[in-house]
Amino acid sequence: MRENDLLASLRDLFASRDPSVLVGCGPDDCAHVEADGRRLSLSIDAFAEGSHFASDALPAEVARKALGASLSDLAGSACRARWALATLSLKRGAAEGWAGAFARELAVMAREHSVSIVGGDTVASPFSTTVTVAVAGEPLPGGPLLRGGAAAGDVLAVSGALGGSILGRHLRPEPRLREIELLMRHCLRRGEGFMPHAAMDVSDGLALDLSRLCRESGVGAIVDADAIPVSDAARELSRRSGRLPLEHALGDGEDFELLLAMPERAWALYEEYARDLPSSLAPFVRIGRVTAGGGVCLRESGGGMVPLEPRGYEHQW
Amino acid sequence: MRENDLLASLRDLFASRDPSVLVGCGPDDCAHVEADGRRLSLSIDAFAEGSHFASDALPAEVARKALGASLSDLAGSACRARWALATLSLKRGAAEGWAGAFARELAVMAREHSVSIVGGDTVASPFSTTVTVAVAGEPLPGGPLLRGGAAAGDVLAVSGALGGSILGRHLRPEPRLREIELLMRHCLRRGEGFMPHAAMDVSDGLALDLSRLCRESGVGAIVDADAIPVSDAARELSRRSGRLPLEHALGDGEDFELLLAMPERAWALYEEYARDLPSSLAPFVRIGRVTAGGGVCLRESGGGMVPLEPRGYEHQW
Repeated sequence: MRENDLLASLRDLFASRDPSVLVGCGPDDCAHVEADGRRLSLSIDAFAEGSHFASDALPAEVARKALGASLSDLAGSACRARWALATLSLKRGAAEGWAGAFARELAVMAREHSVSIVGGDTVASPFSTTVTVAVAGEPLPGGPLLRGGAAAGDVLAVSGALGGSILGRHLRPEPRLREIELLMRHCLRRGEGFMPHAAMDVSDGLALDLSRLCRESGVGAIVDADAIPVSDAARELSRRSGRLPLEHALGDGEDFELLLAMPERAWALYEEYARDLPSSLAPFVRIGRVTAGGGVCLRESGGGMVPLEPRGYEHQW
Repeated sequence: MRENDLLASLRDLFASRDPSVLVGCGPDDCAHVEADGRRLSLSIDAFAEGSHFASDALPAEVARKALGASLSDLAGSACRARWALATLSLKRGAAEGWAGAFARELAVMAREHSVSIVGGDTVASPFSTTVTVAVAGEPLPGGPLLRGGAAAGDVLAVSGALGGSILGRHLRPEPRLREIELLMRHCLRRGEGFMPHAAMDVSDGLALDLSRLCRESGVGAIVDADAIPVSDAARELSRRSGRLPLEHALGDGEDFELLLAMPERAWALYEEYARDLPSSLAPFVRIGRVTAGGGVCLRESGGGMVPLEPRGYEHQW
């Protein structure tokens, strides 16, 4: 069974009539609930040995990946991160100090992102190590952003270079929490018409994730091949794989960059304030445009258009 | 390394100066945070194949155990359950339909307890199946109750029969959410002086968990051997193990009953309204008393006192 099919079947099962659930199980990475007028955003992710990290991965790497990817879900929904909980199901016989090193890195990264680790659970597994992180936050003013809000004419942008994360970056995701917060603040100051329409984080490859965003929004897209920021790692991997760097940028998973759809004037506003951005913040890069229909297409260097196949990372059983 | 030692080291690591964190990582099963005057209670638990459930456990059993035990954390902190998120790291090659059956039972049980499943993650593991459930709720009026609030003179009570859960009940925890809600409501109506002082759920065996409650509260306890409700399963297991039924009731894990410390007048109030309790609610049973010091002791049938060793279930690596 493929992940997409399984997720679709679960969505119906968990459909909620609870009025406190604004956005529940569905295409988006975060749930949004409300109680007494206060909104809360929740997300959870699991990371399995042999799937998300190698058996000999360092505990600090696993911690950084798990918390980083989970925080990226909040960033991709235009939420502020507040609290996190983690579980460690640790394989019996793991190296002495594994749990401690894992926890220390979790604590360091939480401080980096002003998140408080408020709970967890540590259990023993006879077979393998599995890590889970649940994060809680709240929508940024003007948020949350969902996958389903993109409109024809919107600019598509990503927050950084894509592809080749398997060479190392998949263990060091940089959740774009400050980037999205700054963007939302600038846009909101100008007014409703300047707000981004849709967002998500790119965790399963741009081609697959963009196709998901377009499907939820009922739109198409044209992506400019020349505009896609290709990472150095994608180029390096290309030399080994024999595939084009662009293919890696489009199809590799675990970039954890943001994908945004926003009106043209929001993009213009971004270009204005981006001139003075500190270098510690990732700059957004314009990669294409949302169309009313016609599927998701790639405009090649020569100008020709080809359908962009929604290939990327999917779990399979 | 033993679980208790590991947890103690993590506590310091995650100590938070964030004023929104009222109760963070520590002895209690739930974290309690506050933002804009609104309180939120959070807990997370992991369940590993080979540790918490057998490799041939039915997916519905695993679902019921995972959600039940997690909701029991909220009950044990005097909180109302609102939302839950679950992860399933499913072993490749698991029986066709495993994930679906797991999810269906999760949905059924969530409805039973008026909880909305708002998110999750499903991933593939090459090695084994691991499940995590995170729950979010809010303190009941007068709550939350912590482990550290017990006072000398308090009545100790549990919400049901103990021991022998390995014969099957460990797969069917009954979170005592309605029992604690009813108790808190009755007590609060009478006034502050009638509120229970401390609570937790008994997940690692009464002897170990009571010792934890006493340590956090800086008190001792005397438990009456004759008063401890011994489950039929504990008696059955005793016939096989050669150990006394009482030993199973004191030392076996995964009862998921509540352990409460409350002033004498709260207990009197409970006895009053308990006469009219519907049979669907578990009755509390008085098992002993909190003392100012002197450790945790068992008063045997003959009247003799013996120290109650804090033995129970601890994960070890």
